Amino acid sequence: MSRHDGRTVDQLRPISVQRGFTNTSAASVLIQAGDTMVLCTASVQNSVPPWRMPRNEGETAQGWVTAEYNMLPGSTTPRKQRDRSKVDGRTTEIQRLIGRSLRAAVDFGVLGEHTITIDCDVLQADGGTRTLSVTGGFIALCEAVHSLGISGTVIKDSVAAISVGVVNGTPVLDLDYPEDSTAEVDMNVIMTGSGKFIEVQGTAEGEPFDFETLQAQLALAKSGIEQLTDIQKNSLAEAWPF
Amino acid sequence: MSRHDGRTVDQLRPISVQRGFTNTSAASVLIQAGDTMVLCTASVQNSVPPWRMPRNEGETAQGWVTAEYNMLPGSTTPRKQRDRSKVDGRTTEIQRLIGRSLRAAVDFGVLGEHTITIDCDVLQADGGTRTLSVTGGFIALCEAVHSLGISGTVIKDSVAAISVGVVNGTPVLDLDYPEDSTAEVDMNVIMTGSGKFIEVQGTAEGEPFDFETLQAQLALAKSGIEQLTDIQKNSLAEAWPF
Amino acid sequence: MSRHDGRTVDQLRPISVQRGFTNTSAASVLIQAGDTMVLCTASVQNSVPPWRMPRNEGETAQGWVTAEYNMLPGSTTPRKQRDRSKVDGRTTEIQRLIGRSLRAAVDFGVLGEHTITIDCDVLQADGGTRTLSVTGGFIALCEAVHSLGISGTVIKDSVAAISVGVVNGTPVLDLDYPEDSTAEVDMNVIMTGSGKFIEVQGTAEGEPFDFETLQAQLALAKSGIEQLTDIQKNSLAEAWPF
Amino acid sequence: MSRHDGRTVDQLRPISVQRGFTNTSAASVLIQAGDTMVLCTASVQNSVPPWRMPRNEGETAQGWVTAEYNMLPGSTTPRKQRDRSKVDGRTTEIQRLIGRSLRAAVDFGVLGEHTITIDCDVLQADGGTRTLSVTGGFIALCEAVHSLGISGTVIKDSVAAISVGVVNGTPVLDLDYPEDSTAEVDMNVIMTGSGKFIEVQGTAEGEPFDFETLQAQLALAKSGIEQLTDIQKNSLAEAWPF
Amino acid sequence: MSRHDGRTVDQLRPISVQRGFTNTSAASVLIQAGDTMVLCTASVQNSVPPWRMPRNEGETAQGWVTAEYNMLPGSTTPRKQRDRSKVDGRTTEIQRLIGRSLRAAVDFGVLGEHTITIDCDVLQADGGTRTLSVTGGFIALCEAVHSLGISGTVIKDSVAAISVGVVNGTPVLDLDYPEDSTAEVDMNVIMTGSGKFIEVQGTAEGEPFDFETLQAQLALAKSGIEQLTDIQKNSLAEAWPF
Amino acid sequence: MSRHDGRTVDQLRPISVQRGFTNTSAASVLIQAGDTMVLCTASVQNSVPPWRMPRNEGETAQGWVTAEYNMLPGSTTPRKQRDRSKVDGRTTEIQRLIGRSLRAAVDFGVLGEHTITIDCDVLQADGGTRTLSVTGGFIALCEAVHSLGISGTVIKDSVAAISVGVVNGTPVLDLDYPEDSTAEVDMNVIMTGSGKFIEVQGTAEGEPFDFETLQAQLALAKSGIEQLTDIQKNSLAEAWPF
Repeated sequence: MSRHDGRTVDQLRPISVQRGFTNTSAASVLIQAGDTMVLCTASVQNSVPPWRMPRNEGETAQGWVTAEYNMLPGSTTPRKQRDRSKVDGRTTEIQRLIGRSLRAAVDFGVLGEHTITIDCDVLQADGGTRTLSVTGGFIALCEAVHSLGISGTVIKDSVAAISVGVVNGTPVLDLDYPEDSTAEVDMNVIMTGSGKFIEVQGTAEGEPFDFETLQAQLALAKSGIEQLTDIQKNSLAEAWPF
Repeated sequence: MSRHDGRTVDQLRPISVQRGFTNTSAASVLIQAGDTMVLCTASVQNSVPPWRMPRNEGETAQGWVTAEYNMLPGSTTPRKQRDRSKVDGRTTEIQRLIGRSLRAAVDFGVLGEHTITIDCDVLQADGGTRTLSVTGGFIALCEAVHSLGISGTVIKDSVAAISVGVVNGTPVLDLDYPEDSTAEVDMNVIMTGSGKFIEVQGTAEGEPFDFETLQAQLALAKSGIEQLTDIQKNSLAEAWPF
Repeated sequence: MSRHDGRTVDQLRPISVQRGFTNTSAASVLIQAGDTMVLCTASVQNSVPPWRMPRNEGETAQGWVTAEYNMLPGSTTPRKQRDRSKVDGRTTEIQRLIGRSLRAAVDFGVLGEHTITIDCDVLQADGGTRTLSVTGGFIALCEAVHSLGISGTVIKDSVAAISVGVVNGTPVLDLDYPEDSTAEVDMNVIMTGSGKFIEVQGTAEGEPFDFETLQAQLALAKSGIEQLTDIQKNSLAEAWPF
Repeated sequence: MSRHDGRTVDQLRPISVQRGFTNTSAASVLIQAGDTMVLCTASVQNSVPPWRMPRNEGETAQGWVTAEYNMLPGSTTPRKQRDRSKVDGRTTEIQRLIGRSLRAAVDFGVLGEHTITIDCDVLQADGGTRTLSVTGGFIALCEAVHSLGISGTVIKDSVAAISVGVVNGTPVLDLDYPEDSTAEVDMNVIMTGSGKFIEVQGTAEGEPFDFETLQAQLALAKSGIEQLTDIQKNSLAEAWPF
Repeated sequence: MSRHDGRTVDQLRPISVQRGFTNTSAASVLIQAGDTMVLCTASVQNSVPPWRMPRNEGETAQGWVTAEYNMLPGSTTPRKQRDRSKVDGRTTEIQRLIGRSLRAAVDFGVLGEHTITIDCDVLQADGGTRTLSVTGGFIALCEAVHSLGISGTVIKDSVAAISVGVVNGTPVLDLDYPEDSTAEVDMNVIMTGSGKFIEVQGTAEGEPFDFETLQAQLALAKSGIEQLTDIQKNSLAEAWPF
Repeated sequence: MSRHDGRTVDQLRPISVQRGFTNTSAASVLIQAGDTMVLCTASVQNSVPPWRMPRNEGETAQGWVTAEYNMLPGSTTPRKQRDRSKVDGRTTEIQRLIGRSLRAAVDFGVLGEHTITIDCDVLQADGGTRTLSVTGGFIALCEAVHSLGISGTVIKDSVAAISVGVVNGTPVLDLDYPEDSTAEVDMNVIMTGSGKFIEVQGTAEGEPFDFETLQAQLALAKSGIEQLTDIQKNSLAEAWPF
C-alpha cells in the first residue's frame, strides 16, 4: 500500500525538536511531526497539593506532575473556539491522558516538594496532537527536572507515545489528519523506553476489529516508540536522565 | 491465586438484570454485578441533532444515540458530590466511552429520525461501573429500539464490556472495588457478541506492563464478554435483535 | 366525586417502603407512593460546617442536616435534562424545603459534630415527589441517626409531608400527576407526628381560592399525615426514635 | 404585647409609593414600608416566548408576565455580594413567587403579544422585601398595562402581599427585620383585592405551630391586605384597572 | 454650534447630589446629571485581602478600595438583562476604571485594615454613567472614610470624571446619550481637584482624530472637572477631606 | 537617563516579524519585540453575525473583524492559569481594545460577507503584549484580506500601537516588563500610519501626572508608531494595502 504522502506503513513523519523556544518557563520545547506543531512548556512550583504533603512525622512530601492540553484557535481550519467557559470533553480526556502517562515516569518521593505543570499548546494541528504532546512533554519534563539539580533518580524510565490505526484496511504508523479522519481503527500507544506499556487505547471508528489487527498495530507502535526514544535522547543530550 | 471473595481469576461476579424497573421511559434496566448496581434507562426523541439531518434531496435522516453517566451521591462512601456546576473529567470520559461503544452497534440509516439517550445512573458502586453501564445500556437500547417497531436491522451486533486487570501480579477478570484500588493494571474491553473489539483501554496504574500480560488480559476479557452476551440474550428474550 | 384512579377524596395512594435498598451509605430507603418512586439515602460526615462549630469555650458543636433533590433523566417523559451547569429554580426550591422540614425534627445540640446529608433521587415521577421525599427522607434520617448510637434524643418529633389540592372544584388528598397538572389549587403540607405544622405552602394555579377551601385542604392533609406517620413507624421498627 | 417600634400587633409600617421615580422603563415605582425600600420597574416587549405563541390558526398569542428580584449590595450590612456567576437559592425562590403571584391577576388572552418584566430591586432592606415587591410590582404592572392602551380587561383582580408571623409567642402583622430574625413562625400571604388567596407560605422557624396560631395569622394577613389594596388604588388613581 | 438640548459646548448638565439616600451602608449618594441617575453606596469591612496584610514585623496593613458597577434592568429601554451567569466585558472594564480612579486618591497606609467597596448602581441611564459613577463614588468614599474617624489624611486629593467628545465635528463637554451614540470621538477624563490626570481614555468611534482635536477635548475636560470638584466640595461639606 | 537595557528614551526594542509561522489559518504572524513574543493568526469565515446582514433590499452585508487575546501559561513565571471557566477582566479589556483598534482600519462595506478573527496568543511576555498584539494583528489582518482577493480598498489606513510611560520621572518609549512594573504612568497609544489617533489610554499608576508629561509621552508615541509602520510595510511587502 502506498500512503498519500509517500510514507511506508511503518514510517514516522519527520520529527524536529527545538529546546528553549521561549525563556519564561523552566523548560520550553517546540516539537513538530510533519505539520503537527506543539509547544510544550514546563513550569515548576516549589509546593505540592495538600494531599501530597506528608501525613506522619518522618515522611517527606511527594512531588506532583500535571498536564494541560489546548489547541490554539488558529491551529486548525475552521477556527477552533477557545474553551473559555468550560473545557470540552475531548480536551479533558487528552490532558488527563498526558498527565497520567508522564506521571508513570516519575519517582515522586525523589522529586519531593515540587509541582511540575506541563502545558501542551497545539500551534498547528495535522493529526497525532495528543501523542506528540506526550513525547514532547516528556522532553520538557526532563529538562525541568534537570534544572532542579535534584540528586537521585527522579525519572525512572523514558516515555513516548505514537498513534497507529487501520487505513483502507491496512495497519499504519503515525497517522496524519487525512489518514486519521478516514481510519477504521484509531489507536494510541504510550510506552516506556524499555518497551513496556503505560497505556493502550484503541477504538473502532467504523467496523469492530479482530485480534490479528490489534496485534499488527501493537507491533507498529513498538517500532515507532523505539525511534521516538532515540530522538528524545538526542534532543535532551546532557539532560537525558539515564 | 485466591481472590478476596473466593472467585477464580476468570470468574465474573453474579449478574442480575431486571427489565422494566421503572415505567416512565422507553426502557429501564436495573443491572447488578455483585454489589455494583446501575439503572440504565433509554429515552426516545422523534428528532435528531441538525448535523444528522439529510443535506441533499433523496437522503434520509441518520439516527443518533448518546449516553450520560452519573454516580448518585449515596452510591459510595464518602458521599460523592453532585456535578451541578460542571461535570468532572472522569464522568465526561466515561459517558463518551459508553456512547461511542453503543453507537458501534447501530445502523443509523435504519434507525432514522430518532435520538435515543441512554442514562446510566449508578445507584451503588463497587468497581466496574463503566463496563456494567455499557452492558446494561445495550439491553436498554435494544428494548427501546424494539419498542419503536422499525422494520429492518437497526442493531448490527451486540455489545458488552468488562474490566480486566492485574492484581498482586496475576491477571484477573471483573475487578470489584477492593481489587480495582490495588490493581497494577486496569483495563476495560468492549467487544461485540461476534468477538471483535470495539474499544480497548489499558492503563498501568503502577508499573508499566509487558506484552505477555497484555495478552493474558485480552484472553480473560474475551471469555467474560461471551458470558455477558449470553446474559444479555436471555434477558432480552423476544427483544434480542438477532 | 370519583377520582380517575378510583380513590376517594381522602385516600392516599398505596405506599411501600424498602429499607436497605443499597448498602453504600448510612441509610438507604426506596419509597413509593403509587407510581412515584424516590430513593432517599443518608450520608454521615463526622464534621460540621464552620458556622456550626463552638465559638466559646465550654460550648459543643451543633450538628447539621441538609438535603439535595434530583430527578433522574429517565424518571419522566419527555426525558428531564440533567442540572449539570446550573441547578434549576424548581429543584433549588424543593431541596431547600426538604432540608428545612427535616431540620425541624432535630435537636442539633444532641446530634453534635455530625453532618447528615439526605439525598432524594426521584427514579420515577408521578406527582408528589417533594412530599414523598420529605416522608422518605425522614425515615433515612432516623436510620442514620440510629446507626450513630448517640445517647439522648436527637429526633424530637416525626415529620411527614403530603400534597392536597383542588381538582374539578373538589379538595382531594395526595394528587398524582394527572390530577396535579389540572389542579386549581396545589398545596403541600408538612406536619409533625404530634399534629403541628412545619410548613404550609398553597398556591392558586388557576383561580384564587377562598377561606373555606383552604380549611378543607388543611383537614385532608392532617388525616393524610396521620396515616404516613404510622407507615414511617412501622417501617422504622426498632429505629423509630420514640 | 408592645412591639419594639411601638406598633400594635395588627398595624402595618407606614407605606409610601412614588410613581415615575425613573423614566426609562414603561413604569417605575419606588415603594417603601418603614425602612424597606424597593424600586419596581416594568419593561414591555412586543413579543412573547415561543410557547405563548398561537399553535393553531384562529388562535391569538398569550401574553406573559415575569419577575426578577435582586438586593443591591448596599441594601444591607454587611454588604450583600452580587449574584454574578450564579443566582442564589433564596433569590430564585423569591422571584418565582413574585412572578407567579402577579400572573394570577392577568388575563393573558387580552394582554396578547406582550411580555412584561417586573424588576424588583431592593435599595434598602429591613424585612418584608418579597411581599413589598409583590405589592409594588402590582402597581408597576398596572401602570405598564395602562400605558399599552389595550381595550378589554387585562387585570382581573388586584394583588397584594404581606408577611405575618409569631414573635415572642404573639401573632403580628408586617414584620420588620428585628422581628423577622427572631420570629418563631414566618408566613407570607398573597391575596387578591377581593379577599381570596393566591399563595400562602408558612414556615416554622423554631417550634412547629398549631392550628389556632395558623388561623390567627391568616386573620391578620387579611386585614393587612385590605389596607394595602386601598393604598394601591389611591396610588394608581386613573390607572387603577377596575 | 447649538446642542440638541440647548447647552453650550462647554456646559455640564445640571448636577444634583443627595447624600444619605439609603441608611443601610456606611455611605449612600444618589447623584444625577441630567437624566442619568446613579446610586453610589460605600460598604466598609474591617479586614483587607490577604495580599494587603503586613508581611514583616513592624509593618501595618494597607487598606483597600474596590468598586462594582451595574446597570439596573429598568435603567434603559430596551430592558438590560442582568449579569447573572457572567459579567459582560463593558461592565468589567467600567468597574475596573472606577476602582483604579478612586484608589489614586487614597493613602492606604493611613486607611489601615479597612476595605471599602463602592457600588455604583445605575438607576437611569442617559450617557456618562461611568464618569458620574467616579464623581459620585468619590463622595461616597469620602463620607465612608469620614465616618471611620481615622486621624491622619486618608484622602490625598479629590477625584472627579467627565466625558468629552466630538459631535458633528465639534468638541463638546458631558455628552448625553443622543450625543454619545453619534459622537465621532468618545473620551473619558479622570482628574484630581488639583488639576492632574489620573486617567485619559479617548477612542475614535468613527474616523481617527488629530492632535488638535485631542487638545481641545482635554481643555474642555479640565473646565468640567473644576466645576464637578466644587459640587463635590459643597455636597460633602464637613466631610470634605481637605 | 540611561535605561536598564541601554536603550535611549525614544528607542524601540528590536522588532522581528515572521509571516507564515503556521499554515493552518488564513494568516499567521510571529512578532517579537525584545523578549515579548506574540503569535497572531487570522481566521476567515464566509459569514457575518446577524446584525451585520443587510436589512433592506439593495443593501449588502457589512463585514466584521473581532479579536481574542490570550497569554499561554508558560509565557510568564509564575505560570499563568488558563481562563477556562471565565475570562479575567484584564484579558477582556485587552481583546476589546485590539478588536476596536483593528476595526478602525477597515471599510466593512468593501469587506462584505466575511468575518475575520484575529487571535493574539502571547508565547512569551516581557511587557507591551497588548500593543504588540495590535501591531502584529494588523499584519495578519492585511495578509488575510489580501488572500481574499477582494477588489476595492478594504483597508483604509494602517494601524500600529506602542506603549509609553514615565519611569523614574522620565518619559520613555516601549516599556519592557521591568520598566512597566515600576512606571509612574502607563500609556498605550494606537495610531494610524497617517498620524492620527485611534485610541489613547493613559493611567497614573502612582502619582497623577500633569499636562506637560502627557504631551511628552504623546510625542514619543508618535515617533514610535512611525517606525512600526515602516516595519509593517516592509514585512507585508506585496500584501501592503496601499
